[in-house]
Amino acid sequence: MVFVLKPGVSQREIDRFVALIESRGFKTFISIGTEHTVVCLIGNTAAIDIDSVVQTNDIVEYGKRVTEPYKAVNRTAHPEDTIVNGGGVPIGAGMFQVIAGPCSVESEEQIIEVARSVKAAGATLLRGGAFKPRTSPYAFMGLGADGLKLLLAAKKETGLPVVTEVMNQTQLPLFEEIDVIQVGARNMQNFDLLREVGRCRKPVLLKRGLANTLEELLMSAEYIMSEGNSQVILCERGIRTFETYTRNTLDLSAVPLLKQKSHLPVIVDPSHAAGIQVLVAPLARAAIAVGSDGLMIETHNDPARALCDGAQSLNLVQFAGLMDDLKRRIAFEGKQFGDQVIQGGNPGGRFLRLPKIAKSVIFNNG
Amino acid sequence: MVFVLKPGVSQREIDRFVALIESRGFKTFISIGTEHTVVCLIGNTAAIDIDSVVQTNDIVEYGKRVTEPYKAVNRTAHPEDTIVNGGGVPIGAGMFQVIAGPCSVESEEQIIEVARSVKAAGATLLRGGAFKPRTSPYAFMGLGADGLKLLLAAKKETGLPVVTEVMNQTQLPLFEEIDVIQVGARNMQNFDLLREVGRCRKPVLLKRGLANTLEELLMSAEYIMSEGNSQVILCERGIRTFETYTRNTLDLSAVPLLKQKSHLPVIVDPSHAAGIQVLVAPLARAAIAVGSDGLMIETHNDPARALCDGAQSLNLVQFAGLMDDLKRRIAFEGKQFGDQVIQGGNPGGRFLRLPKIAKSVIFNNG
Amino acid sequence: MVFVLKPGVSQREIDRFVALIESRGFKTFISIGTEHTVVCLIGNTAAIDIDSVVQTNDIVEYGKRVTEPYKAVNRTAHPEDTIVNGGGVPIGAGMFQVIAGPCSVESEEQIIEVARSVKAAGATLLRGGAFKPRTSPYAFMGLGADGLKLLLAAKKETGLPVVTEVMNQTQLPLFEEIDVIQVGARNMQNFDLLREVGRCRKPVLLKRGLANTLEELLMSAEYIMSEGNSQVILCERGIRTFETYTRNTLDLSAVPLLKQKSHLPVIVDPSHAAGIQVLVAPLARAAIAVGSDGLMIETHNDPARALCDGAQSLNLVQFAGLMDDLKRRIAFEGKQFGDQVIQGGNPGGRFLRLPKIAKSVIFNNG
Amino acid sequence: MVFVLKPGVSQREIDRFVALIESRGFKTFISIGTEHTVVCLIGNTAAIDIDSVVQTNDIVEYGKRVTEPYKAVNRTAHPEDTIVNGGGVPIGAGMFQVIAGPCSVESEEQIIEVARSVKAAGATLLRGGAFKPRTSPYAFMGLGADGLKLLLAAKKETGLPVVTEVMNQTQLPLFEEIDVIQVGARNMQNFDLLREVGRCRKPVLLKRGLANTLEELLMSAEYIMSEGNSQVILCERGIRTFETYTRNTLDLSAVPLLKQKSHLPVIVDPSHAAGIQVLVAPLARAAIAVGSDGLMIETHNDPARALCDGAQSLNLVQFAGLMDDLKRRIAFEGKQFGDQVIQGGNPGGRFLRLPKIAKSVIFNNG
Repeated sequence: MVFVLKPGVSQREIDRFVALIESRGFKTFISIGTEHTVVCLIGNTAAIDIDSVVQTNDIVEYGKRVTEPYKAVNRTAHPEDTIVNGGGVPIGAGMFQVIAGPCSVESEEQIIEVARSVKAAGATLLRGGAFKPRTSPYAFMGLGADGLKLLLAAKKETGLPVVTEVMNQTQLPLFEEIDVIQVGARNMQNFDLLREVGRCRKPVLLKRGLANTLEELLMSAEYIMSEGNSQVILCERGIRTFETYTRNTLDLSAVPLLKQKSHLPVIVDPSHAAGIQVLVAPLARAAIAVGSDGLMIETHNDPARALCDGAQSLNLVQFAGLMDDLKRRIAFEGKQFGDQVIQGGNPGGRFLRLPKIAKSVIFNNG
Repeated sequence: MVFVLKPGVSQREIDRFVALIESRGFKTFISIGTEHTVVCLIGNTAAIDIDSVVQTNDIVEYGKRVTEPYKAVNRTAHPEDTIVNGGGVPIGAGMFQVIAGPCSVESEEQIIEVARSVKAAGATLLRGGAFKPRTSPYAFMGLGADGLKLLLAAKKETGLPVVTEVMNQTQLPLFEEIDVIQVGARNMQNFDLLREVGRCRKPVLLKRGLANTLEELLMSAEYIMSEGNSQVILCERGIRTFETYTRNTLDLSAVPLLKQKSHLPVIVDPSHAAGIQVLVAPLARAAIAVGSDGLMIETHNDPARALCDGAQSLNLVQFAGLMDDLKRRIAFEGKQFGDQVIQGGNPGGRFLRLPKIAKSVIFNNG
Repeated sequence: MVFVLKPGVSQREIDRFVALIESRGFKTFISIGTEHTVVCLIGNTAAIDIDSVVQTNDIVEYGKRVTEPYKAVNRTAHPEDTIVNGGGVPIGAGMFQVIAGPCSVESEEQIIEVARSVKAAGATLLRGGAFKPRTSPYAFMGLGADGLKLLLAAKKETGLPVVTEVMNQTQLPLFEEIDVIQVGARNMQNFDLLREVGRCRKPVLLKRGLANTLEELLMSAEYIMSEGNSQVILCERGIRTFETYTRNTLDLSAVPLLKQKSHLPVIVDPSHAAGIQVLVAPLARAAIAVGSDGLMIETHNDPARALCDGAQSLNLVQFAGLMDDLKRRIAFEGKQFGDQVIQGGNPGGRFLRLPKIAKSVIFNNG
Repeated sequence: MVFVLKPGVSQREIDRFVALIESRGFKTFISIGTEHTVVCLIGNTAAIDIDSVVQTNDIVEYGKRVTEPYKAVNRTAHPEDTIVNGGGVPIGAGMFQVIAGPCSVESEEQIIEVARSVKAAGATLLRGGAFKPRTSPYAFMGLGADGLKLLLAAKKETGLPVVTEVMNQTQLPLFEEIDVIQVGARNMQNFDLLREVGRCRKPVLLKRGLANTLEELLMSAEYIMSEGNSQVILCERGIRTFETYTRNTLDLSAVPLLKQKSHLPVIVDPSHAAGIQVLVAPLARAAIAVGSDGLMIETHNDPARALCDGAQSLNLVQFAGLMDDLKRRIAFEGKQFGDQVIQGGNPGGRFLRLPKIAKSVIFNNG
């Protein structure tokens, strides 16, 4: 259940209303939009009579039941698009970003060469795996903590904010300087990990699991938000089907559906979905046209010798060529790209571990 | 195995070469491109030494094994894009078409109203179901032969070529005046039907089955082509997955993959894939961006009262609004749309039933 | 909606009640059980008040709404198990049958050798494909009408009733002497074919489509029954999933579910599901344990040289060995096997094509 | 690559051979069977000439390449069935076990009542969730550490060894007294967790992920074994498909396939697969017939009031009735059930955390 407050209500009035609600045993999320503040109730709201709440609380414009199991993530609770701040780079609400870089960080030379090149081509965030989930225990697992250091060296060198995957919560202390924490497809329902990243003040890039429904993806985002972190980016990266020409089937319907049901930004990873390099460009174009807020594209200085996922990686020249095309398309969609910076604070920077969540959690876009 | 002939060889020389090949027990397909003629051999070619064929036949430029099980459909056999002539409207090779109309023809007023409106909005072909495959024997099955007549009345009224589905081969005589015969998803592997439409001189719009791989779709197109009909349009319309928010999952990777592996045009039906109207526009945009050669969009004068599939149909105003957007996008992709007409013959018009296929079949784009 | 009549009502009383119902615009199915006769109404029954029907018609014991979209197939409409008469061999209601034979009939020697051998091992029906649906137009398609003749020769030789697949309705006249007509997985939603076999007085073995839900399978059986043919055997043969070690994933949950929701017998084809011979025996054992009414097992005299599906075929020795095991298991389940014959008429023999269906259709188990 | 040693070789000879292999840079697993010892090499073995190894090492009977990516898990590396010791109860190699209990431990009374009842009915291990992975952050998550204590109280009361799920590696210290650690479907590819349980001296029950292939399941087992823990039980629990009548589709082909490819025991969980109680009995019967080594059946004292998964739980009377049936079937299959105890040590008891794995790891069945 949400209550949309009238414009211009004071913080004191909001606090009083929230205290009233919480005194009846509900947890609340408060979402501060540019016009309206919305108070979202979690708990069994069956007994609440919306009309009587509206009539007895002057500051409430209207109330609405949220029947979906996801509440904080729900667009009803936050009608405007959320903007995620990825190390100073805004994602969502018409601002488009391209995250590029190799599947795994392999060496300082490699990651810095790739970072410089993708930045020159227009990428606005750098990706690179340090901890790699691999099907086989005998495969290359990434450089681990050293990989994170090399990634941060590339960040220092180029100024690009960095995105990298965490595989378990004990690694989180190593992610202090990382701008966006990725939760991979195989961890989409690692609920303890979701809770822990929910207690970080860090943007989280949450990938859809290989066989998870969109509702499950939204529920996993709800795990993160329910701990107080509203900086969540959803990522479609392909699902398992019977088709064999591609590794996974990219589900582009996910983008408009997720944006209809939720206020969170949605990006697309065509590289992992397709598993073959030749599909990356057409799927990236389609992702822009279908309304995504960004792309994540695997790019490598030498795909043929990549330690993982070479088959799906663009080389640096291919990426630069593709970016020229994509920039025209982003402009065609009327979206901003690449030249904005979020003023002031840098939520993607150092993070505070939140104390065990208080009853009332505040989300905003600032 | 294909043999690409040198430019400028005479018909007599081609005939002699084909006779030689066929005397060794192979069936041949001959594809006539703007520069090269390609002779494609069907049969167990393991014993053929390509080099000796090239060396002993002056007119052969080079030969190549085709390892894929689809031969005539293969781009190797016909490197240029095939243009399908849909009742005078060209589809493929940079020419984009929009097929619109209701799920089923319900009455003369309805189909003419829809036809006029979608034509005014820019649609270039009219769809409308007369024979409807329905899961339940108690559901509305379409108007049958009467529906075909109403569809032809709308064609006469508007000049739009018409596309409609055949459900079994005994119905084919009724399709004499229909421009494009649709083989539906549930009939994609109705091999006897494929063979019969392969013996018509009619374009065939072949929809991917709900759980068929792209290779199986290409093999079904091969059935049609192997009977002598090269006028095949492939259509992606969504596949079955575990996702529940959409009826099916539209697989847009199919478009670039099919166009890489085959020379046939590929169109997209976002309406049936999604099953909900709100996804039609974004998926149509994505289909254009991913490289499709056309769209098939369900449009109804009164979706709320449609006898089938109302939930996924655009109304006439929505369709017109969408078309304005799509035309800009088709132009952005550098494709031609809507104002070309194929001069001369009208392959989509009356048809001859081919005699049982001769050994040698000739395909061209004329 | 169904009305269960009191025991011992006369035919005249039933006719009068049915006439009353039909006068209100409904189509009826009448199912005659050993104790009760059930009258099943098709049409929009929303306006019918069950209580008033019961109170004003002495012969009605009680009425019940059928919310499922399948009506005649529904167990509510026919609480007892239906027994299908496969050429004198009863299937269902505790009577278990094993159908064996090759994927395709290849020659007289082959089919007679296989028929003799599987009969000696205990098989009670013979299968063999004459019309083969093949993904490739260049693959072996079966011997066609000649294959049917060879199959009938094997029937004559051994006395085994025969099961074989029809691919389209124009072939049906050739099936006059065939005991059970198979509708294959790819034709499960070939609705025109379903209707035609529904108008035959022949048992139909209906295979589940590769990506069809159980409800869709029941609806396809409803197509057949709605035309007046209640002799339908449902067959689970595996569905498409992402798993690659098997060709399809055998869904054994289908057996108890179908038997709960419907009165029709359910058999299992482990050969096509698995696609590999080594899984046939364990899956056949599981199928018996899960409650199936029969098995269909591909058996060939020389699998390594089979013209199709050799990889999944048992050889004759393997089949005989498996049968020894299966017989013990069928007995363990308390089912009868192999030694019953239906006295009198032979519904699997010559068939009458029914006239276009009258309003009232009568089903029974006799 | 594996080398099978001659019977009767001494430990000294084995050590010398292993040292030789490891000096060439390979990691080795040593599997001690009742007749043969097998040395399994991990690493790039392309350069090894098997013949020359056999000829120059007297103790080697023969060598064989293992082309599958799973090595220690491979039946080639350990031709005999592995017996897992679940707190004194042997699983595998013809010894069948039934694990029963509620989805979650809810109170001391509940778990003890269930434990006593399922023990009386014949269950040989007790399950009960303390840490519950739930799709929604607002759902009941289990009693956590308190749940483990109650489970251990039930173990003390009844003597039944206990199985319960770990959700992340930081919880492992709490599992000291637990007999079998379950890794749930959603964690099947939580590779860091797999590695950690691989370093415990505890049996691990590894459930197949909802959309994971059998090869991926084997690779996840390989993660555990590669850390030195060979006590792994594989569990099939249903996969995601398009079917809607069941929660998941139980893939019983998995059982014979996994047992063919691997030496590990395989059990089946029909409760989670089906999601509805009525399917549990038939699927349990099928699981026995298909060759599984055990069953995991959700059982609750009051399913209608269960805090989770009540719809799929049997009540205590249903479970007892089912067990009578299952015992007859286990006997029919020639398997031992329920009355054996592993003498001596209790690997399921207290555990040592292994030091970071040494090069050579020894597996045996003792």
